Amino acid sequence: MDGGGNTGPIGGLRTEVSGLPESGIVELVNYGREVTARDGRDLIGLWVGEGDQPTPAFIMDALERSLRAGNTFYTYQRGTPRLRQALADYHSRTYGLTFPMERFYITHSGMQAIMLSMQSLIGPGDEVVLPTPIWPNVLSAVQILGGKTVPVPADLGNAGWTVDLDRLMEACGPKTKAIVLNSPCNPTGWMMPREQMIALRDFARMRGLWIVADEVYGRMVFDRHHAPSFLEICEPEDRLLVVNTFSKNWAMTGFRVGWVVAPPSLGQVFENLVQFNTSGVAVFLQDACATAVEDGDAFLARTIDRCRQGRDLVEARLSALPRVRFGRSAGGFYTFFAVDGEADSRALAFRLVDEAGVGLAPGSAFGPGGEEYLRLCFATSTARLSEAMDRLEPVLS
Amino acid sequence: MDGGGNTGPIGGLRTEVSGLPESGIVELVNYGREVTARDGRDLIGLWVGEGDQPTPAFIMDALERSLRAGNTFYTYQRGTPRLRQALADYHSRTYGLTFPMERFYITHSGMQAIMLSMQSLIGPGDEVVLPTPIWPNVLSAVQILGGKTVPVPADLGNAGWTVDLDRLMEACGPKTKAIVLNSPCNPTGWMMPREQMIALRDFARMRGLWIVADEVYGRMVFDRHHAPSFLEICEPEDRLLVVNTFSKNWAMTGFRVGWVVAPPSLGQVFENLVQFNTSGVAVFLQDACATAVEDGDAFLARTIDRCRQGRDLVEARLSALPRVRFGRSAGGFYTFFAVDGEADSRALAFRLVDEAGVGLAPGSAFGPGGEEYLRLCFATSTARLSEAMDRLEPVLS
Repeated sequence: MDGGGNTGPIGGLRTEVSGLPESGIVELVNYGREVTARDGRDLIGLWVGEGDQPTPAFIMDALERSLRAGNTFYTYQRGTPRLRQALADYHSRTYGLTFPMERFYITHSGMQAIMLSMQSLIGPGDEVVLPTPIWPNVLSAVQILGGKTVPVPADLGNAGWTVDLDRLMEACGPKTKAIVLNSPCNPTGWMMPREQMIALRDFARMRGLWIVADEVYGRMVFDRHHAPSFLEICEPEDRLLVVNTFSKNWAMTGFRVGWVVAPPSLGQVFENLVQFNTSGVAVFLQDACATAVEDGDAFLARTIDRCRQGRDLVEARLSALPRVRFGRSAGGFYTFFAVDGEADSRALAFRLVDEAGVGLAPGSAFGPGGEEYLRLCFATSTARLSEAMDRLEPVLS
Repeated sequence: MDGGGNTGPIGGLRTEVSGLPESGIVELVNYGREVTARDGRDLIGLWVGEGDQPTPAFIMDALERSLRAGNTFYTYQRGTPRLRQALADYHSRTYGLTFPMERFYITHSGMQAIMLSMQSLIGPGDEVVLPTPIWPNVLSAVQILGGKTVPVPADLGNAGWTVDLDRLMEACGPKTKAIVLNSPCNPTGWMMPREQMIALRDFARMRGLWIVADEVYGRMVFDRHHAPSFLEICEPEDRLLVVNTFSKNWAMTGFRVGWVVAPPSLGQVFENLVQFNTSGVAVFLQDACATAVEDGDAFLARTIDRCRQGRDLVEARLSALPRVRFGRSAGGFYTFFAVDGEADSRALAFRLVDEAGVGLAPGSAFGPGGEEYLRLCFATSTARLSEAMDRLEPVLS
């Protein structure tokens, strides 16, 4: 007799979880680890969303000072007052508006910011509408919660990537609880125009929908100070959650700290969600993050400049390859490109590891519309990117 | 028109989440923070589950070495090979059995170990049977996932706390997916006998149920080397998840790192759950944890001894108070006691902050059966505990 319907551990799990796809990015990274372990080969990994710079020394110093000061105990579930205030100041000076610290909640990564946002909104049968290609972890977070994602594929035309707002709105039905927007977009580099944000805000207000805005790359833009943000056009008590991370701006992917900007009325809700998921973030990590935000403007400016150089190099080299198609990246870390005659991006990504020694992420990982593409992260030195392009060209020509 | 049925952010949330109770422990801690900010008063906080020792220097040193070595990038979702192997070795020497590293998955805290376990098992309508009083975060994790907890109150008699296994089994119905056991128990100090574990294992096998064992206090025992563990009596591919944390044994509450021992066949499942919740734990934290496990036996032995002294002091002092009832703690950090004539533990806990300057956790936070109790964490110096008892006696006499 077996009440679970099957024998064995897997048979006893929720199908939403046992059926989760392996991250299509992690799958390649794991393959790369195997190849390196086997051949000792120097792979150039441009598959994940992180740069090649270690966390700057002034941030490490701040962590160590805090640690040695004895900050090794439990702390505030909403985040330390210092870090919340530092984020309020950062947003105020970034957008030229006033943000109180009560709108900021500290999470264990931008990923957790997304997961907690989804926990607050999405239950079984609820729908989330979103443009694709998109960072696939959003899709999986919704699946874990029993929700359904409704993809609306973006288009790559002569003007670069565009999202058809009418199609996005038409995709919202009676079960839709939220619309997820990621601008600047990982993986496409699309940047949502302010007029589209206003139109979508008005639509969401009318329909009582939530907007969950992943604005992780909001500063990683190349022709202006910051990307348009829903924070500039929404009221504090709009149904808006903005998710973000310290990972990209301040080279802190390895720290796993992020934040949510939420309506002040949700303070207790986010306190509870943090408590019941991970019970807060280490004080010494939060102190390091506060220092990053307080003293990291110069580092951020250099990082943006570095990414611009990376983008320009990669786009110039790819432009010379007749089989390659892509839209110029308005923001973010990535060039997302297709190769004529290569419809299976996953197979191509494996081949590029084997034949070129370069790790890229397969576009098939990013939902409908990405199948023919590869994602290349250009947040790396131009020397390393040149070498990567040298290796890629023979296969992509 | 409002598709959400209500206006305002709260009205748009899932009721399972907007209706989450504030942690009854955090509520008191937050009140204590207010009182201290207002009066500058020296509260003795024995409300949360942590000791008064900062993380030992050799663990901080390990963190700093790893950080300075440049370990500030993304890493393995299952945990670093070094830490997983260190845990395998630790379990092998603790239990005198052989554990391969493939059974260990690193999480962002013991709390996350519970949340990910519940995500893998519990969806809407699914039931979790558990003895109460119990650490309340388990109840809330199940609620967030739309599941239902079925409490089976434990009994305090002359032999201390006991759990009636027949009642626990009778509480398991067709919707039951899992039984949660926490031994040694937070808050009661109950330790599950090995014979009960075997009986429950056999019952769970017969019914295809999962056992989720919170063995966080498995080493914090005072009359033996370790508490009986489900790991000693189950096979690797049994439906068993054991959750644990570095917080208690090695004074690392502020680090937020834990682990799950799961069937090897669930490797991809836990890799995915980590990926889609927080995307891994900082390498420098994992390196610190590995050093704690590798080199921390002496520290652990001193910590256990310190807790024994704390327990003996608190129990001796409480025994002298005629209104106070409690069961001797076989393990864990806590004395859980009732005060005759004080049925409302939450009100009493607030009064003790105001009148005695001592912070205790109200038993009402721990589910059915705890309403008349208070939880005192004795993982603190005997000097501080003496002072706390001096302050408590006038109110509890």
